[in-house]
Amino acid sequence: MRKLNIAMIGGGFMGKAHSIAYAGMPMFFWPAPALPQRKTVVDINEEMAKAAAERYGFESYSTDWRSVVEDPAIDIIDIVTPNDSHAEIAIAAAKAGKHIICEKPLARTAEESKRMLDAVKEAGVKHMVAFNYRRTPAIALAKKYIEEGSIGKILNFRGTYLQDWSADPNSPLSWRFRKSVAGSGALGDIATHVIDMARYLVGDISEVLATSQTWIKERPVQSGSVDKLGTVKAGSDVRKEAVDVDDEVSALLRFDNGAIGSIEATRNAWGRNNFITFEIHGELGSICFNYERRDELQVCFSSDPEDRRGFRTVYTGPAHPYGEALWPIPALGIGYTETKIIEAHDFISSIVNDTEVSPNFEDGYRIAVISDAILESANAEKWVKIVYM
Amino acid sequence: MRKLNIAMIGGGFMGKAHSIAYAGMPMFFWPAPALPQRKTVVDINEEMAKAAAERYGFESYSTDWRSVVEDPAIDIIDIVTPNDSHAEIAIAAAKAGKHIICEKPLARTAEESKRMLDAVKEAGVKHMVAFNYRRTPAIALAKKYIEEGSIGKILNFRGTYLQDWSADPNSPLSWRFRKSVAGSGALGDIATHVIDMARYLVGDISEVLATSQTWIKERPVQSGSVDKLGTVKAGSDVRKEAVDVDDEVSALLRFDNGAIGSIEATRNAWGRNNFITFEIHGELGSICFNYERRDELQVCFSSDPEDRRGFRTVYTGPAHPYGEALWPIPALGIGYTETKIIEAHDFISSIVNDTEVSPNFEDGYRIAVISDAILESANAEKWVKIVYM
Amino acid sequence: MRKLNIAMIGGGFMGKAHSIAYAGMPMFFWPAPALPQRKTVVDINEEMAKAAAERYGFESYSTDWRSVVEDPAIDIIDIVTPNDSHAEIAIAAAKAGKHIICEKPLARTAEESKRMLDAVKEAGVKHMVAFNYRRTPAIALAKKYIEEGSIGKILNFRGTYLQDWSADPNSPLSWRFRKSVAGSGALGDIATHVIDMARYLVGDISEVLATSQTWIKERPVQSGSVDKLGTVKAGSDVRKEAVDVDDEVSALLRFDNGAIGSIEATRNAWGRNNFITFEIHGELGSICFNYERRDELQVCFSSDPEDRRGFRTVYTGPAHPYGEALWPIPALGIGYTETKIIEAHDFISSIVNDTEVSPNFEDGYRIAVISDAILESANAEKWVKIVYM
Amino acid sequence: MRKLNIAMIGGGFMGKAHSIAYAGMPMFFWPAPALPQRKTVVDINEEMAKAAAERYGFESYSTDWRSVVEDPAIDIIDIVTPNDSHAEIAIAAAKAGKHIICEKPLARTAEESKRMLDAVKEAGVKHMVAFNYRRTPAIALAKKYIEEGSIGKILNFRGTYLQDWSADPNSPLSWRFRKSVAGSGALGDIATHVIDMARYLVGDISEVLATSQTWIKERPVQSGSVDKLGTVKAGSDVRKEAVDVDDEVSALLRFDNGAIGSIEATRNAWGRNNFITFEIHGELGSICFNYERRDELQVCFSSDPEDRRGFRTVYTGPAHPYGEALWPIPALGIGYTETKIIEAHDFISSIVNDTEVSPNFEDGYRIAVISDAILESANAEKWVKIVYM
Repeated sequence: MRKLNIAMIGGGFMGKAHSIAYAGMPMFFWPAPALPQRKTVVDINEEMAKAAAERYGFESYSTDWRSVVEDPAIDIIDIVTPNDSHAEIAIAAAKAGKHIICEKPLARTAEESKRMLDAVKEAGVKHMVAFNYRRTPAIALAKKYIEEGSIGKILNFRGTYLQDWSADPNSPLSWRFRKSVAGSGALGDIATHVIDMARYLVGDISEVLATSQTWIKERPVQSGSVDKLGTVKAGSDVRKEAVDVDDEVSALLRFDNGAIGSIEATRNAWGRNNFITFEIHGELGSICFNYERRDELQVCFSSDPEDRRGFRTVYTGPAHPYGEALWPIPALGIGYTETKIIEAHDFISSIVNDTEVSPNFEDGYRIAVISDAILESANAEKWVKIVYM
Repeated sequence: MRKLNIAMIGGGFMGKAHSIAYAGMPMFFWPAPALPQRKTVVDINEEMAKAAAERYGFESYSTDWRSVVEDPAIDIIDIVTPNDSHAEIAIAAAKAGKHIICEKPLARTAEESKRMLDAVKEAGVKHMVAFNYRRTPAIALAKKYIEEGSIGKILNFRGTYLQDWSADPNSPLSWRFRKSVAGSGALGDIATHVIDMARYLVGDISEVLATSQTWIKERPVQSGSVDKLGTVKAGSDVRKEAVDVDDEVSALLRFDNGAIGSIEATRNAWGRNNFITFEIHGELGSICFNYERRDELQVCFSSDPEDRRGFRTVYTGPAHPYGEALWPIPALGIGYTETKIIEAHDFISSIVNDTEVSPNFEDGYRIAVISDAILESANAEKWVKIVYM
Repeated sequence: MRKLNIAMIGGGFMGKAHSIAYAGMPMFFWPAPALPQRKTVVDINEEMAKAAAERYGFESYSTDWRSVVEDPAIDIIDIVTPNDSHAEIAIAAAKAGKHIICEKPLARTAEESKRMLDAVKEAGVKHMVAFNYRRTPAIALAKKYIEEGSIGKILNFRGTYLQDWSADPNSPLSWRFRKSVAGSGALGDIATHVIDMARYLVGDISEVLATSQTWIKERPVQSGSVDKLGTVKAGSDVRKEAVDVDDEVSALLRFDNGAIGSIEATRNAWGRNNFITFEIHGELGSICFNYERRDELQVCFSSDPEDRRGFRTVYTGPAHPYGEALWPIPALGIGYTETKIIEAHDFISSIVNDTEVSPNFEDGYRIAVISDAILESANAEKWVKIVYM
Repeated sequence: MRKLNIAMIGGGFMGKAHSIAYAGMPMFFWPAPALPQRKTVVDINEEMAKAAAERYGFESYSTDWRSVVEDPAIDIIDIVTPNDSHAEIAIAAAKAGKHIICEKPLARTAEESKRMLDAVKEAGVKHMVAFNYRRTPAIALAKKYIEEGSIGKILNFRGTYLQDWSADPNSPLSWRFRKSVAGSGALGDIATHVIDMARYLVGDISEVLATSQTWIKERPVQSGSVDKLGTVKAGSDVRKEAVDVDDEVSALLRFDNGAIGSIEATRNAWGRNNFITFEIHGELGSICFNYERRDELQVCFSSDPEDRRGFRTVYTGPAHPYGEALWPIPALGIGYTETKIIEAHDFISSIVNDTEVSPNFEDGYRIAVISDAILESANAEKWVKIVYM
C-alpha cells in the first residue's frame, strides 16, 4: 500500500486534529487510498517542536519550515499556522512540488489567496483548504438530497455561526483579534465556514450586502503565543489593546441561480458554543442543520401526505454519505475527529487518484473574494457584486 | 361591574379568536376591568351575519357597519375585516367616539395608517392594533428580563416568521395575495408581527435594508370570499391570476440604540407552520423564543458559573407575566386563545383605567412606515432611513 | 338550534376551564351539536357562588347542589369538585336523569366508581369523565396512525407524567395530598391521565407491577380551601401535617394484546412542569408525544427509505383530527382551552346524537380498578391481575 | 516517557475504536501518562490479522492469542472479541501478569465474570471493563453535579437504551442473538451500559423486578462471522434460525440508598438509533442526558429563582470534566472516538499511577450479577434481591 509522507507546519489544537486524522484515516477508510506517514512537524520553538513530534506521533521535528518544504522525502505539506503565514508557506511548498492542505481561511485577503491559487495551479499539485465542517456526514447528506432534487429548486439559505468563547470582554486578545495576523475577525474565522456551506449546497454567490461590528473594542493582551480560544480569562489589571477586526458580521446574499440568503456570524452570542446552522427552503422541501447536534439532519418533503408531513430527524449512519467508513450504527457519535478523518481521506484520495477535491484553493480564493466584498459592503453600505479574477 | 358593549366588524377565523377572548377574559382576569358584552356582529351577507351572531354569542347582527359604528349603545369597535377596509371603518368609529381595536396590519400603507392614527388622537379614544403574538407570556417574560437588565445592552436581534400553508403553487389566491386588498404580502401579514416584537423588545428602528421576492407568481382564483389560509387546494384546471405582493422578505435592521438585527418572513418554508422566532444577544446574556413551542422561553445568563452555564428552558406559569390570570401551573397550555384573552384584557383595561396600551395605532403606524421602507429598500436596493411624520 | 342547560358544581381552576369550553365550543365547532347554556353554578359559599356566576357567565348561582341536580331545567351536571364528592353528586344526578360530565379521577376508589357507573347505566344518561389530555389533537392523531396500522402491532408503551409544582416540601398540603379527599396522590391525580392514554392508544391492561413512594412526608397546612397548586409557599413557621398519599408511582404494565408498558408519575421532578409524555414502539414504527410541546407529534415509519428515515415532527392543524374546527393553520396554538373545548363538543355530541363517548364512566371505573391494583401491587410487591366486576 | 505495549485480541468495529484511542490518547492528554504502543493484533484468520495490523497501525500480528498473552514484551491485553471468549483470554492474561481491558459485558454470566475478577485480583494486575459511554464528558459532568450535592439526595433514576438497527425481522442473526456466544441479548449488550450509569451516578442496586421479551423470534443466518450490526439485510429466501436471547428488557430498580429507578432497553424502537438516556430527580434538582445529543447535559436547580428556573442546556467543554484535554470550545464535537480516548487514558493512568480505575472487573462482575437477577426476575415474575459473592 502506497505511503505518503506528511510534514505539518504549526501546532495548536489544529495540530491535534490533523494528527489524529492521519492516524485514524486508514482505520476508518479501508482499504485506504494510501497510508499517511506523520514524518515531520515544524515549530519555531525547538522544545515545542520536539514535544509536538512525541505527542502527535511524528518521526522527526524541525524549526525550519523552509528546509522541510524542500525535503524530497515529503509528499504533503499541511499548514496549520495562523493566517498570516499561509501564503508564504503554501507558495514555497507549491514551488517545491508538494501537495498542500491549508487551514482556513486560505489567507488574509483575496489577493493573497489568489497568489496561492496561482502557485498551486502552476505547480500542478493537489490542494485543499480545510473547511472541515462541510464534511459532517449530515451536511453531505443535505448535499445528496439537493442533488437528487428532493427539495426542488432552492429559494433561500439562512446560515449562522454563533459563538461565545470570547463574548467576555476580558477574554484575551489572541492572534484571531489582530488584523495583521488574521486578516479579519469573525468573518474570516467563522463566517467563511458558512460561506463554504452556502456555495457547496446552493451554488456560487453573485452579490452581498453586509454590516459588520466590533462590539468589544479592546481586549487584554495575551501572554505567550498560545491560542487558548477564550478559556483563559485575563485579570482586570492586565494591559488591553485595541481589537482591529470585526466580532460580528451579518450579510444578505444573492446566488447566481437566483436564490437568496443570509449569513450571521458573531463572537457575542452567550449560550451559543459552536452554533453552525443552516436552513434551506426549496420549492419541494426544506433542510435544517445544527452542528451542535451534528449527528442529525432535518428534512421536510412537500410530497409527504399532509396528515404526516413534517421535518424528519435523520441520524446519519451507514446508509448515508461516508457512513460505511464511520460507525456501524447512527448516533454512535460523530465528533470533530470524524470530520477531520473524512477530510484527510478525501484529500489523500485526490492525490492518489489524481482528481480534484473540494474545497480547494479555488474555493478558498472565491470565499476570500466574497469575504473582501462583505467588508467592502459593510464599509460602503451598499450591495457589492462578486467578481472573480 | 362595568360593562362595555362591543361591535365586531367582520368574521373569518379572527372573529372566532376575538369572540372567545371576550367571553373568556373575565374568567381568566378576575376581578375583570370590565365585562365585555358581545353586542353586535356585522357582515355584509345577512345570512352570515346571523350565523355569526349565534355562533359567536352576539346579541344582534347587522349588515351595515356604518350604522353600527354610530350606535350610541356601542363602546368598542373591533375591526376584523381584510386590510383595505380598516382605515374607513376606524376613522368613522373614531369620529363616533368609539374605542377601537383593529386587526393587524393597521392598514395597507403608512399613509392610510397615519390617517387612522390622526383620527383616534383627535377623537381621544383608546386604540389598539392586534399584534397578539407579543402577548404570549414567554415574550412578555423576555421583555421583563430585558427591562431588568438581565441580558445587558442588546447587540443583536434576529427574527423570523416562516410558514408553509401557501408554499404549494396551487393553494388559492386569497385576498392576502392581492395588493389592492392586503397592501403587501408576507411583509404586512406576518413580517409585521416580528417588527412589532423587535420594537417591543429592542427599541425603535432607524434604518432598513431589504430584499423581497414573489416566488409563486400566480395562484388559482378562490371561489367565494372565504379566507381558507391554504387548506383548500385548487385543481389544476382552475383559472390562475397573478400575485402582486411579496411572498418572502428579508431585511437587515439598525435600531436607534445601536443594536443591529435581521428579519426573515416567508410563505415558502416547507415544514415551518407558524415559525415565529427570535434570538437576542445582549452583552450579558441571550434570549431565544419559538412560537411553535410557545410555553417556553430560553435564556442564558453570562453571570452563571462557566461549569453550569447554558440556555435555561423556562416554561411560563404563575411566576411569570400574566401568569396569575392564566393556568395554575406552567405548561398546562398556552394556545392562540390565551394570547387573545390577554390582548382583550389589556385593551379593556386601558379603556377603564384611561391609560395607553401598546401596540396602539402609533405603533401600528410606525410599523407601517417601516414596512413601506422595507418595500422601498427592496426596490431601490439600498439602505432606507425610517422617518416618522 | 337545540340548547342544553348546564349546572356546574364547584369551581377552582377547573371551573374556568369548563366555562370557557362551553362558551367557546360553538365558536369552534359550527354548526354546533347544540348550544350549551351556562345556567347555574354551585358553591357552598354564597359569595363565591355569586362571583363565579359573574366571572364564568352563568345566569344564576346556588349554594345547594342537591336542589340544582333536581332542577328540571337542567340537562347536564358538570362536576368539578374535589374527588370525595364525585360519587354522591353523580349518583344523585343520574337518579334525576341528568347527563353527567365529571372531573377525573372518577372517584377515590374502584368501589365508588362502580357505584357511579351502575347509577348512570341504570338511568340511561350520558356520562363522561374529563380526561381531557387525550383530546389533544396530536394524541388523536397518534390514535389515527395506530388504527390505520401505520406503526403495526404495538410492542411497548412508556408513559410519564412528571411535575414539580409541589416538589418543594414547603408547598402547601392541599386536598390533593389528603387520602380522605383525593383517594390517592400522584396516582389518581396525574398517573390516571397516562393510564387513560395507554388504554386509548394500546388497549386494556391485564396486569400491573408497581412501586409507590411518599418522598415528602409532611407539608404545611393550607389556610382556606383554596387549591393553589403549589404557587403559594408556606413559611417555615407554619404547622405541618402528614401526607397520607403517594407523590410518586412507577409501574410496569401488561396489556391484553400482549404489549408491555410502563408508567412513571411524580410530583418531585424539578424542571418538569406538566410533562405528560409517551413513546410507543410498534412493529412498523414509533410514536412520541410530549404535552409540554403539544402542537407536535413525532412519528417514525419503518417503511421510509433508510437514507431518509427518522422521526417526523408533525404539527397538528386542519389536516388532522379536530383540525377543521380549531385554527386555520398548524401551530397557531393548542392550549388547555382547546382541549376542553373539544371535550365539551364530544360530550354534547354524544347527548344530541345519543351515542357513546369515551372516556366515560366505564373507562373511569376501569382506570380506578387499575389504580387500585397499582396500590395493591406496590404494597404486596408483586404482579396484580386486573379484574373488572 | 514510559511506553506500554498493547496486544489487541480481536477486531470488528471495536478494534477500530480501541486503535484510534491508543493513537489519539497522547495527542489529547499531554503530557500523557504513558505512550501506548500498538504492538500486536490477533485474529484467528491470518489474512484478517495481517490486514488489521496494517489498518490499525500495529507493529505485528498473530493468529494465536495464547502465545501473545504470554509474550513478555506485552504489557496490556485488550480483549475485543465476542463475549464467549472474554473469560478464557482474561484469565490467561491475568495469570501471565498482564493488565487487561475487556469489552463489555465482562462475560456471559455472573459466574464467568466472578472467575475473571478472582483472576485479576489474585494476579494484582489492573483491569477495566469498557463501558465507555459513562466517559462521555456530559455524564462525567452529571457525576460532578451529584457529588457536589447540586441536585441533593437522589430520588429517582430512569434510564433507556433504545435502538432500531435490528428492528427489522430480516436483519441477520449475528452472534449478538445467540445465547451461547452473547450470554443474553439487549440485556447484556445495551442494558448493561445503563446499569453501569445507574451505579456510577446513583449507587449500587439492591433489588430488581423485570420483564423480558423476544419479539423477533427468528432471524436469517448470517454468512461469515462478520458482525455487521444490522446493516446487511438478508433476502427472504435465506434460512432462519431461532433467537434465544431477549430483544427487550424492562426493569424497576431499588438502590441501596433508597432511590428507585427503571431501565428500558430494546432493539425494536424504530427511529431510536443509539438512544441512551437518563433522567435523574433529586431533592434539589434534576439532570437529563441523551447520548444522541451527547455534547449536552440538561440540569435544573431548584435554587434558581422561580421566574428563571428551568433546565439549563450545558454544552461540555474546557470548563467541564476532561475538557482541558479535548477541544478548546464546547460543541466542537464529542464523538465515539473521544469517549474511547478518555477510556484509554484513564486505564493507562491507572497502570502508571497504580490506582484503581472504574468500571473495573469488580463493576463488571456486579453488573453481571444484576443482569442475571434481571433474567431471574423476568422468569420468576417477582422482585429479586442482588447478592454479591
